[in-house]
Amino acid sequence: MAGNSFGNLFKVTTFGESHGEALGGIIDGCPAGVEIDFEAIQKDLDRRKPGQSAIVTQRKEPDEVRFLSGIFEGKTTGTSIGFIIENTNQKSHDYSHIKDSYRPSHADYVYDQKYGFRDYRGGGRSSARETACRVVAGAIAKQVLRDVNFQAFVSAVGEMSLDKPYEELDLNVAESNIVRCPDAEKASEMESYIKEIRKQGDTVGGVVTCVIKNTPIGLGEPVFDKLHAELGKAMLSINAVKGFEYGSGFEGSRMKGSDHNDKFNTDGTTKTNFSGGIQGGISNGMDIYFNVAFKPVATLIQSYETIDKEGNIVEMQGKGRHDPCVVPRAVPIVEAMAALVLADYYLLNRASKI
Amino acid sequence: MAGNSFGNLFKVTTFGESHGEALGGIIDGCPAGVEIDFEAIQKDLDRRKPGQSAIVTQRKEPDEVRFLSGIFEGKTTGTSIGFIIENTNQKSHDYSHIKDSYRPSHADYVYDQKYGFRDYRGGGRSSARETACRVVAGAIAKQVLRDVNFQAFVSAVGEMSLDKPYEELDLNVAESNIVRCPDAEKASEMESYIKEIRKQGDTVGGVVTCVIKNTPIGLGEPVFDKLHAELGKAMLSINAVKGFEYGSGFEGSRMKGSDHNDKFNTDGTTKTNFSGGIQGGISNGMDIYFNVAFKPVATLIQSYETIDKEGNIVEMQGKGRHDPCVVPRAVPIVEAMAALVLADYYLLNRASKI
Amino acid sequence: MAGNSFGNLFKVTTFGESHGEALGGIIDGCPAGVEIDFEAIQKDLDRRKPGQSAIVTQRKEPDEVRFLSGIFEGKTTGTSIGFIIENTNQKSHDYSHIKDSYRPSHADYVYDQKYGFRDYRGGGRSSARETACRVVAGAIAKQVLRDVNFQAFVSAVGEMSLDKPYEELDLNVAESNIVRCPDAEKASEMESYIKEIRKQGDTVGGVVTCVIKNTPIGLGEPVFDKLHAELGKAMLSINAVKGFEYGSGFEGSRMKGSDHNDKFNTDGTTKTNFSGGIQGGISNGMDIYFNVAFKPVATLIQSYETIDKEGNIVEMQGKGRHDPCVVPRAVPIVEAMAALVLADYYLLNRASKI
Amino acid sequence: MAGNSFGNLFKVTTFGESHGEALGGIIDGCPAGVEIDFEAIQKDLDRRKPGQSAIVTQRKEPDEVRFLSGIFEGKTTGTSIGFIIENTNQKSHDYSHIKDSYRPSHADYVYDQKYGFRDYRGGGRSSARETACRVVAGAIAKQVLRDVNFQAFVSAVGEMSLDKPYEELDLNVAESNIVRCPDAEKASEMESYIKEIRKQGDTVGGVVTCVIKNTPIGLGEPVFDKLHAELGKAMLSINAVKGFEYGSGFEGSRMKGSDHNDKFNTDGTTKTNFSGGIQGGISNGMDIYFNVAFKPVATLIQSYETIDKEGNIVEMQGKGRHDPCVVPRAVPIVEAMAALVLADYYLLNRASKI
Repeated sequence: MAGNSFGNLFKVTTFGESHGEALGGIIDGCPAGVEIDFEAIQKDLDRRKPGQSAIVTQRKEPDEVRFLSGIFEGKTTGTSIGFIIENTNQKSHDYSHIKDSYRPSHADYVYDQKYGFRDYRGGGRSSARETACRVVAGAIAKQVLRDVNFQAFVSAVGEMSLDKPYEELDLNVAESNIVRCPDAEKASEMESYIKEIRKQGDTVGGVVTCVIKNTPIGLGEPVFDKLHAELGKAMLSINAVKGFEYGSGFEGSRMKGSDHNDKFNTDGTTKTNFSGGIQGGISNGMDIYFNVAFKPVATLIQSYETIDKEGNIVEMQGKGRHDPCVVPRAVPIVEAMAALVLADYYLLNRASKI
Repeated sequence: MAGNSFGNLFKVTTFGESHGEALGGIIDGCPAGVEIDFEAIQKDLDRRKPGQSAIVTQRKEPDEVRFLSGIFEGKTTGTSIGFIIENTNQKSHDYSHIKDSYRPSHADYVYDQKYGFRDYRGGGRSSARETACRVVAGAIAKQVLRDVNFQAFVSAVGEMSLDKPYEELDLNVAESNIVRCPDAEKASEMESYIKEIRKQGDTVGGVVTCVIKNTPIGLGEPVFDKLHAELGKAMLSINAVKGFEYGSGFEGSRMKGSDHNDKFNTDGTTKTNFSGGIQGGISNGMDIYFNVAFKPVATLIQSYETIDKEGNIVEMQGKGRHDPCVVPRAVPIVEAMAALVLADYYLLNRASKI
Repeated sequence: MAGNSFGNLFKVTTFGESHGEALGGIIDGCPAGVEIDFEAIQKDLDRRKPGQSAIVTQRKEPDEVRFLSGIFEGKTTGTSIGFIIENTNQKSHDYSHIKDSYRPSHADYVYDQKYGFRDYRGGGRSSARETACRVVAGAIAKQVLRDVNFQAFVSAVGEMSLDKPYEELDLNVAESNIVRCPDAEKASEMESYIKEIRKQGDTVGGVVTCVIKNTPIGLGEPVFDKLHAELGKAMLSINAVKGFEYGSGFEGSRMKGSDHNDKFNTDGTTKTNFSGGIQGGISNGMDIYFNVAFKPVATLIQSYETIDKEGNIVEMQGKGRHDPCVVPRAVPIVEAMAALVLADYYLLNRASKI
Repeated sequence: MAGNSFGNLFKVTTFGESHGEALGGIIDGCPAGVEIDFEAIQKDLDRRKPGQSAIVTQRKEPDEVRFLSGIFEGKTTGTSIGFIIENTNQKSHDYSHIKDSYRPSHADYVYDQKYGFRDYRGGGRSSARETACRVVAGAIAKQVLRDVNFQAFVSAVGEMSLDKPYEELDLNVAESNIVRCPDAEKASEMESYIKEIRKQGDTVGGVVTCVIKNTPIGLGEPVFDKLHAELGKAMLSINAVKGFEYGSGFEGSRMKGSDHNDKFNTDGTTKTNFSGGIQGGISNGMDIYFNVAFKPVATLIQSYETIDKEGNIVEMQGKGRHDPCVVPRAVPIVEAMAALVLADYYLLNRASKI
């Protein structure tokens, strides 16, 4: 209820502040008998971790996960899987400059209003550091769904965006550049742009697109828990996300029905896929694809005016090691959340028929 | 779990097929002591009901709600509120033409795959008729939150869209025209366009925008249950919705941080509101606003080819009384879902501090 | 959260006051394809209904259930099943005698304290009339689990109790007498005793025992959601229940381990069954059996002193048509709740292994 | 869903096997601003830990808890509280004797059936070692409810039981003897008896009684989530529990209504308390009291025959350091679970009225 859990049958609950001792989580409901590929988990963590390239924050954190339960002789046992990631880079900073002040477009102000006070060391619980735990859980969810392929990539940075639909691109290219964009030329331009933005002490937003191939037919529940509704919630729960669209998305709202309807082939597949692999909230076996919009990071390496707790205007100076653009690191987080949703609905779907 | 409930502390569960005997629902967790304005509930139902104007389906349904429990001497008692809406317009149609065939971009195919068979009379459970129950529950949620103002309106129909931000419009204008657009001139153009589309037997999509004023500070939970994540899920669960964005939305992904950050006034309000009234997933007291994209209705009044259960190609002829564009009727549904989310988080927030 | 739902994957939510217009409920998560035996449902309702014999309340209610959705061509569709039971016997009583007073050992006082006021017509939501909806849902749960046999019966009325273990009795005898006791002679004595109690305007408690045969192995979840923990909650949620024990129960607490351990046969069954069919919270395939203790009904047909809202002592006179002993009518309710638990865990267990 | 969580608004989720690396948990929904008394937490852990006296298992575990998040400057922040307890005493035993065999009245057999295999080192997840995490969470729940007093004690060991109602005893005596029985003389007899049982390599059951004083009026939800139903589930979820009764309990089922009804005093308190502080599932401010029956521990220090996975009869020899009677160590666990239930309902009750 207090919002630190995601999922029902395959559920993850997380804890941890950016500058606390450790982050961690519990995965409850992972079916027994899943062979765990620990390297794949660490690989996804590495795709998310700080310091991985010249266009992300230069903070260093190994982000190594330690599993404490629920896995025995390399396989899940059906009991809850506990894990922690120690915070090794929690320097005893001087936080006096942010303790009593509210950074613009951060959660500082609302946390104080909601809870009466806050852990003012860094972002506390509202830090995106929390997403490391999502990546761990999502990596296991991917292993529950071995036949399903999740691939996210960067499709836009600021005003720069892919100009081809994903079907015309080699998505494997995405992981070969530090932007994680499947068009090598665009990737290069985006990289230069992010570096330029960083020099200015500024930040920029972007879009991550995710394509899920080989989803079983029938996942999703009618009415409130439609598959795309849960995917949307999952994505919107990621730090800095401002929008979500699937299939034809906002563009679809400008279309006519006669253009938008997906005609059937005789095998039940469809000739077009404006539906984005989901009809009536239920997967139809076609590719699921969606876009996730990320705002520019709020922390600038610039000086600015803001207010303190008493409403006085104070001068602040952004400093530290921050991301000029979050989308390259957000790619594995988007995949992780997508995998969590599908693993949950996959198990739930087993109860659909007698 | 099977997806017919929404909310936690303020929870609605619904039932009913488009051509069954009745629709209905149960609201559980409505606090005791709320004085119920029955006229306001019916008024929202009337805003959603078929046959209300020349640009919506001409099907006639009174959509009168009968409350069966949980209200005593005009006030909620704290116990569960049961209600039903009888289906008065369920003619004994001949459904043989759709019984064994799959209409494109409908849920027919996936229901058969998921459940083994389906109620083939109209849309069954996947019909938007189900949203009448959401409107009932949402109207009560609005009464739990008497000081909060929910106003949705049509901001785009097909390619035609508002060209001013909502702050520059008189939103009250929306309810004075049948499109529910707050710009009277645009409304008139949209109306003509929808009529033209109808003549073609075609349909068109559109966008509903919702503005929520006077939200208490502190609603929303960090991490997975961010306020906008739940709002997004709520909206994406409405039939035909393809996208959701709040605050700066997709446009925000193209901005720089130095432009996007919302500077504070000394009273804690902000000078701009790219955040859309939500920071870190928690309401900050500013206006909450968001856009919801609706695809064009899949049912066309045209003949077309599709497949039957055996994969044979069959000729179908769309007929009946369908909406050429859903957004005018979707306006009260968007408000209802928004009210459900906020009522739930309003009660939950009471547990935030000792 | 507000407590009108039971179950997770197979979930029932109910509404309705004893003297409101109707009772009803929604079953969410019933798998598709269950052939519904409507007679069996009505038969269980008839076993619970008032006026069925000389030893229960003489109030007359037909308790006929009307299904509104979720069943099509005789089978469940996988969508939510809505149903209502009209209250036909809600005479416009004069309630002034209880409106402002608190009956001892009823919920009147605590409802006023919790909610600020209450529906004072009869028991309102706290009336056992609500259990009719449980019986409907439970009867469907039994049909989900066609191979499992649920049989409850009366094992004690006041000080009178069965003196043989259930294995030595023909449980079918229970339904052949109005007490629902499987020992015909005991049943006759109990019947006489209940009649005597009624003449005195008094009431008496009793015990219902339930035996579940042919449960699949593996139902139940370790730790908090052990099968017997959920069965215990289910039983304790029935009006007037004061205690629950399964297998060896309280007697087991007086035993030594060397006597209590259930030795295995070579096929995995056990030679004794002190475990009551559940080990470590998980069914082992042996008979599940448990006892449920019911207090004497609080409504006496006697005059007594109590207090009103202002704390004044007032004279009240119990009147009306009440049960002198609830256990004969509680038998189908116990079965229904047991079936709800098992159906839920049966579906959940499908997610245990990959 | 998979049963490793308890509670809704105040929710604990746990992980850990008896012989894994560590146990731990996450408390989600603890309100912000609770000052944490770490000594009180450790004190409750010490009351549960092995090796604390001559009548419990002589295994040595310090059971020290390490908090990783959610507490800042001595107070809860409103975010999730993660904690771990390292397993320091997980010797690399030889488990070959139990790996392929099923100990009677343990969960070995059903785990293999349910999950396909099991962590055979000790009890794995079914070990009562898991309850250490419950004690941590319960100790924090007690601090949320500072004005409520939870006191559990041993009221029976085998055939020996208290012969006075709790009101006539000084409950503080319980913590002054190793049995945790509030009658010093009985405690001495029980201690001798347990020592005798241990010498025989046998075990014995017992009863823990819990008294809760000063509960606010209004906790509990009508219908399915009655306060005593949730207390019952909480207790029945503890390892080895076979029965639960509150207030008059099973004895109440043998009484007449005229004796059982609790007459009111003019201040709303009652002259007797057969109701056990709960009416209609809602607390009435009187003492809540209940009994919890524990079976004898299944592990005997004796040799016995059982079966292996293939159904062959094998000879086993119980060995190791086991409790001859669990009730002295169960006392803080019962209190912890009671505190978890009440903290959850206390927060939930804030949503009862507008």
